[in-house]
Amino acid sequence: MITSTQNPRIKHLLLLQQKSSQRRADGLFVVEGRREVEHCLEAGYRLRTAFVCEEISSPPPNLPPSLPPRREAFEVVPVSPNVYERIAYRGGTEGIVAVVEARSRKLTDLKLSASPLIVVLESVEKPGNLGAVLRSADAAGADAVVVCDELTDLYNPNLIRSSIGAIFTVPCVTCTTDECIAFFKERGIQILTAQLQDSKLYYDTSMTGPTAIVMGTEATGLTDQWRQAADAHIRIPMLGRLDSLNVSVSAAILLFEAVRQRKS
Amino acid sequence: MITSTQNPRIKHLLLLQQKSSQRRADGLFVVEGRREVEHCLEAGYRLRTAFVCEEISSPPPNLPPSLPPRREAFEVVPVSPNVYERIAYRGGTEGIVAVVEARSRKLTDLKLSASPLIVVLESVEKPGNLGAVLRSADAAGADAVVVCDELTDLYNPNLIRSSIGAIFTVPCVTCTTDECIAFFKERGIQILTAQLQDSKLYYDTSMTGPTAIVMGTEATGLTDQWRQAADAHIRIPMLGRLDSLNVSVSAAILLFEAVRQRKS
Repeated sequence: MITSTQNPRIKHLLLLQQKSSQRRADGLFVVEGRREVEHCLEAGYRLRTAFVCEEISSPPPNLPPSLPPRREAFEVVPVSPNVYERIAYRGGTEGIVAVVEARSRKLTDLKLSASPLIVVLESVEKPGNLGAVLRSADAAGADAVVVCDELTDLYNPNLIRSSIGAIFTVPCVTCTTDECIAFFKERGIQILTAQLQDSKLYYDTSMTGPTAIVMGTEATGLTDQWRQAADAHIRIPMLGRLDSLNVSVSAAILLFEAVRQRKS
Repeated sequence: MITSTQNPRIKHLLLLQQKSSQRRADGLFVVEGRREVEHCLEAGYRLRTAFVCEEISSPPPNLPPSLPPRREAFEVVPVSPNVYERIAYRGGTEGIVAVVEARSRKLTDLKLSASPLIVVLESVEKPGNLGAVLRSADAAGADAVVVCDELTDLYNPNLIRSSIGAIFTVPCVTCTTDECIAFFKERGIQILTAQLQDSKLYYDTSMTGPTAIVMGTEATGLTDQWRQAADAHIRIPMLGRLDSLNVSVSAAILLFEAVRQRKS
């Protein structure tokens, strides 16, 4: 059992949590919490190490019994409560923090349904916002979330946390805007850009065919490149006094309108 | 100019930020940021004191020129950057923190439209969640947000902050569940409870008439009292692997379906 927060493996874990450069260099990231680890395993990620604290989580974390081969493949390292407290964000209620091998997935690796529904974010202001968008995308059964900003680190701990595991349940890739537009045009996926100007109401727009919904940042909105590539510009009417919605809320409203049109 | 964080007025301001008991005892609360203060004034609240830091916000905060009488009515107290940093949450980019008189508004004080659209939260797990719901309610032009939990403090700083001012633009009241159900029944406002069991899809439910959408907490869901009082139970289909949406996201999906049905 590791009992010191100065243990080299614990120090390495903390570096992985804190620095995207460390995550990139090692091709590793950190997942906290039982359900998050379960979603991660189900998505086919390979765990390297699970740091578990039995004092905190008793009985010990139940890794999914349906996945024995993977369970064999990683090391389980017991840690003491003081160490767990140092490595866990969420006040130590779950007793598991795992180191996982990153995967790099490209746009062309996505397996899309016959009439895909995709969310595109031009860039990400806060990792927590992308996590929340992924959660909305999971609920709406979206095929994928694409981030057109190659600097975004999909394994940021705030992102994983706010997604409550959706980073594992919804395929998520980063790419350039050029690549993304070309990909949609080749596959006949209509591009709907969310923008207040020169736009029609989202519920007057058909989303039953293959559809990508593209959203800019709250601060700067969408770039001209996307506006010009769009098949239609759509807006959510702002009926109150404020002038914006949180990006995950906007994404959910638009995605569930697609769900409604497709199912009702 | 106040230059010491030990100044009694600054200490009192910090107490108002930190303790709901202090807010209740004094009938005062704290608002930070220019736009928030503007929304607060527009909503008819009375400012007592505006602590401003000109070094941080230059030119000094523009209080709305359309409201000179109110502008006269409160005291402007310059503070030094070190004091401002202590009293501001948001890294000191805006230069204004105001002390405002609380108002207590009851259910029967609400001015409702001919076909009101109301959100009810049974209780509030995190103040930030209520703030986010208010933001969604503002965007959808909802008549009111009602919290059936008299312990909820509507002037919590996290709530005000996450609402980005919607706590001032959307009428918000607290009351008991009994009062709330009686109020809706008397006025012929249909009660739609959001619940996964025994429910129909939200988009198959008419929301064109007077409608209250009632939501439980993420942790415990709705109480039986609301389920039994409901005219219909509605659900958002969860099409992914996770089993819940953030409450502000759910509220936005349901509210904007009402908007769609009423406008399209």
